[in-house]
Amino acid sequence: MTQLQQDSLSPFMAECRDRCDKAMASHLDSLTVMPETLVSAMRYSALLGGKRLRPCLVYASALATGQTIEYGDDAAAAIELLHCYSLIHDDLPAMDNDDLRRGQPTLHVAYDEATAILAGDAMQALAFQILSESSRYSESVRLRMLQCLTRAGGCHGMVAGQAIDLASVGQPIKLPALENMHRLKTGALIMASVELGALSAACVDESILSHLRGFAGCIGLAFQVQDDILDVTGDTATLGKQQGADQALNKPTYVSLLGLDEAKLKASRLIEDAHGHLDQIDGDTRYLAALADYITGRLY
Amino acid sequence: MTQLQQDSLSPFMAECRDRCDKAMASHLDSLTVMPETLVSAMRYSALLGGKRLRPCLVYASALATGQTIEYGDDAAAAIELLHCYSLIHDDLPAMDNDDLRRGQPTLHVAYDEATAILAGDAMQALAFQILSESSRYSESVRLRMLQCLTRAGGCHGMVAGQAIDLASVGQPIKLPALENMHRLKTGALIMASVELGALSAACVDESILSHLRGFAGCIGLAFQVQDDILDVTGDTATLGKQQGADQALNKPTYVSLLGLDEAKLKASRLIEDAHGHLDQIDGDTRYLAALADYITGRLY
Repeated sequence: MTQLQQDSLSPFMAECRDRCDKAMASHLDSLTVMPETLVSAMRYSALLGGKRLRPCLVYASALATGQTIEYGDDAAAAIELLHCYSLIHDDLPAMDNDDLRRGQPTLHVAYDEATAILAGDAMQALAFQILSESSRYSESVRLRMLQCLTRAGGCHGMVAGQAIDLASVGQPIKLPALENMHRLKTGALIMASVELGALSAACVDESILSHLRGFAGCIGLAFQVQDDILDVTGDTATLGKQQGADQALNKPTYVSLLGLDEAKLKASRLIEDAHGHLDQIDGDTRYLAALADYITGRLY
Repeated sequence: MTQLQQDSLSPFMAECRDRCDKAMASHLDSLTVMPETLVSAMRYSALLGGKRLRPCLVYASALATGQTIEYGDDAAAAIELLHCYSLIHDDLPAMDNDDLRRGQPTLHVAYDEATAILAGDAMQALAFQILSESSRYSESVRLRMLQCLTRAGGCHGMVAGQAIDLASVGQPIKLPALENMHRLKTGALIMASVELGALSAACVDESILSHLRGFAGCIGLAFQVQDDILDVTGDTATLGKQQGADQALNKPTYVSLLGLDEAKLKASRLIEDAHGHLDQIDGDTRYLAALADYITGRLY
């Protein structure tokens, strides 16, 4: 498989973002019994930007397993809504207490706390509703997607990771524990993105799925290492959130545990391993490969 | 169908409570990657009491459509977890700010706000996970259950109702708007309970389902009318929550809009209509009938 030209990734990501945003907007438009304020709060959080990395992974994984791009729409929308709900709740005063997200006031600042809690709750339910009702996928595929996403988004993934994260603030933590936390908090949803992409292609080849999971595990961790690096080296305008926020909260990070140089090296090695997994897959993995590079290349 | 003896309802409700609690406990025990505090918070909210009205309705509806009781377990556990998560979030300081629930400190008081938000989030995901993975039901039934419950528990039901409720505090509201709010906030999950019970019996007879929905619509409203009555006439010990809490919040209620006597009459009429729907169903509807009476008979 030849390398994707780096300048081909941007239009692909733009297309993914556009497709996913349209899918989310269409589902949000159908919420006719919700109070206007709550729908507008959900739109505010879901549609005002973001790189849409998870949707990009869904689409790229669908392409890698032989599916056409439109089959990723419902899976991408479901995953992104789940991701957005987690950001809303994580930003709450009782949690990370963040005022800024993607360069905008966080939802509880722009609206109020009650609206933010409810909008998050509604977005979680909507994510699962979209998958359960999607006419794109067979009943069997929809169920497998739901099994994957309820685990990744809930007690076996994202929520467990967030709980460990909150419990770790100000606590001494070692590298394996930090890695476990990130594997759950952000890694699980990144893995689910790749899995749902393959499921949208009705891919049940265990060898392919296993390498896709291996790939996702590597880029999920690399993404987090890079996030920790950016918290130190980035500036607030580029990040869209307060630079140094993790340091200020005395949160354990890869940089605080490994030092900046070692953290950068770790991210590079993870991306190498990710490429190794893709090499074992007989499909058009160019977009997945380019996304892996993108994750660590953002500021290099 | 002969009338169920009133003294037969209590053992049935006790059996339902026991079955549902065991099912929930078993699913909670399987959460091995969650921090201990979060699992213990989820257990605290899910397993420390409650009448388990929704699970009772699941089981009674399964029996009415010709299924055996154990087929209700996973549906009952999923619905009760969804109900419990909504109570946790509704009780939060930014929402109803309640300190007491089922005679115990609310979760954010017993633990803390962040734990309460996360426990609720995790319980919502777990509810849908249980249905998606249940080996009791066919793939097709599981999907229909998920379609029903994601709508009832989310933007097309419970969350929409709670948002309308919050927006209505201190606002003048007329009876149709109050009814719409309750139809969403509590009615949707009560209707889902009866529907999931019938789905557990793989019942797809539209006439039966339609009468079950009619029944559920009546008892859902009756339940809320009765709740408003109890807020005025009950005492804190019996209610397990602060007596007069709705009045103190200046919330519109059936009693404030209709007066106490008219509200009692409305509840009775709704239960009569509920029985009318059951009369059209050719099955063992005795438990459903007894539960309808129970709802308004609690303090009579």
